[in-house]
Amino acid sequence: MNIILLDAKNTLDDGLYGLTLRQQTHISTVIKAQQGDVLRVGLLNGKIGEGVYQPPSHDKAGYIHSLALFSSPPEPLPMVLVMALPRPNMLKRTLQNISAMGVKDLYLIHSAKVEKSYWQSPVLQTESIQQCLLEGLEQAKDTLMPNWSLIPRFRPFVEDQLPAILQDKVGLLAHPYLAERCPVDIQQPCVLALGPEGGWNEFEVSKWHEAGMQSVHLGDRILKVETVVPVLLSRLYPA
Amino acid sequence: MNIILLDAKNTLDDGLYGLTLRQQTHISTVIKAQQGDVLRVGLLNGKIGEGVYQPPSHDKAGYIHSLALFSSPPEPLPMVLVMALPRPNMLKRTLQNISAMGVKDLYLIHSAKVEKSYWQSPVLQTESIQQCLLEGLEQAKDTLMPNWSLIPRFRPFVEDQLPAILQDKVGLLAHPYLAERCPVDIQQPCVLALGPEGGWNEFEVSKWHEAGMQSVHLGDRILKVETVVPVLLSRLYPA
Repeated sequence: MNIILLDAKNTLDDGLYGLTLRQQTHISTVIKAQQGDVLRVGLLNGKIGEGVYQPPSHDKAGYIHSLALFSSPPEPLPMVLVMALPRPNMLKRTLQNISAMGVKDLYLIHSAKVEKSYWQSPVLQTESIQQCLLEGLEQAKDTLMPNWSLIPRFRPFVEDQLPAILQDKVGLLAHPYLAERCPVDIQQPCVLALGPEGGWNEFEVSKWHEAGMQSVHLGDRILKVETVVPVLLSRLYPA
Repeated sequence: MNIILLDAKNTLDDGLYGLTLRQQTHISTVIKAQQGDVLRVGLLNGKIGEGVYQPPSHDKAGYIHSLALFSSPPEPLPMVLVMALPRPNMLKRTLQNISAMGVKDLYLIHSAKVEKSYWQSPVLQTESIQQCLLEGLEQAKDTLMPNWSLIPRFRPFVEDQLPAILQDKVGLLAHPYLAERCPVDIQQPCVLALGPEGGWNEFEVSKWHEAGMQSVHLGDRILKVETVVPVLLSRLYPA
């Protein structure tokens, strides 16, 4: 947690921001802050700056007051990430990474090689996804919560939703066959579609291509999804 | 496990390669191979190709025979990675990633902000490190086991060993202050030094600089070590 992200929903009185249990624990046990210490804070979906810490007392939870917010969060990546739903044990870390690296538009989509059971994972509950994304923001000192959607049906998304999303963007399909090497430091916004372990199937590839996406590859090495995400994002845009 | 890596040490008879328990389990439960099936195999530190599967019988463990090795493993990254020892819960995944991405020379080094207790982690036992690196090779369909060393003392390494390692290479220090943006697709071999959470301290930075390393940064976002590794490697060299 490299920044304490305050939520306007937790305002106590005018200018006082209540701390969540996680934040309180971090402040007490890792930062070991004392009353009056100035901490690095950000306002969720707002600016970054400092605030003064008031520890919990016997009748009141801890809070931050006297906020001074003076800098903008890091630039978002100008891209939309459409990712086949990863297996549950990779999902949390992948969501954290996606958020930490600055993706602001995420679709988790079904694909033939995504096991149906993955959609039952408790990590997919709204609160759990939000929590993972929040942890990514806290890691990267960002404040802008990503938008995300679950897409349990592939075809209606690619046929009906994708054209509008793809407008004025480059469409890149991470797919090893018939592919160009993944470009580096592209200057335009993009839609990046990242397949499941085992890749998109032929039907899916043809649908992506019909929609105007072009295949790109990352060389001979097969990498885990949780590794491919930072590799692709950092190739496409400079940090 | 995208390739079965056979070890010449496990040769049974001429041309027969014994399977480890992990490989046998993977072949039986994931690949679900039958007697006579042709599997994608590689020879540890050798070439890649195919071999024929012989399942275990009541008196004999499973093995691979009739090897045909015809292709080279993927190109190694032309770099030496010197990394402050990560916290144990990130170490396994980081080692796997490093190996999967093609690093062949790795030094895990002490730094002021590495907790002494990290050096006691069971993951640092030789067999455990080898196992993590092997899993990275299996993931990436590579066969070349990385060289690695543990460097529990910072200063003698940087003063005495580094100059020879750095010869004919660019020295890059991942460090956010007084730094250039990390270059992309460099054409030379490099030594990359990656700090601990919290970064190198001033003394360490001055020692790296004295040795001829230049600082590079990755922008405003603070990323976990396990994310920074794929980000840096994929910026420095194309896949």
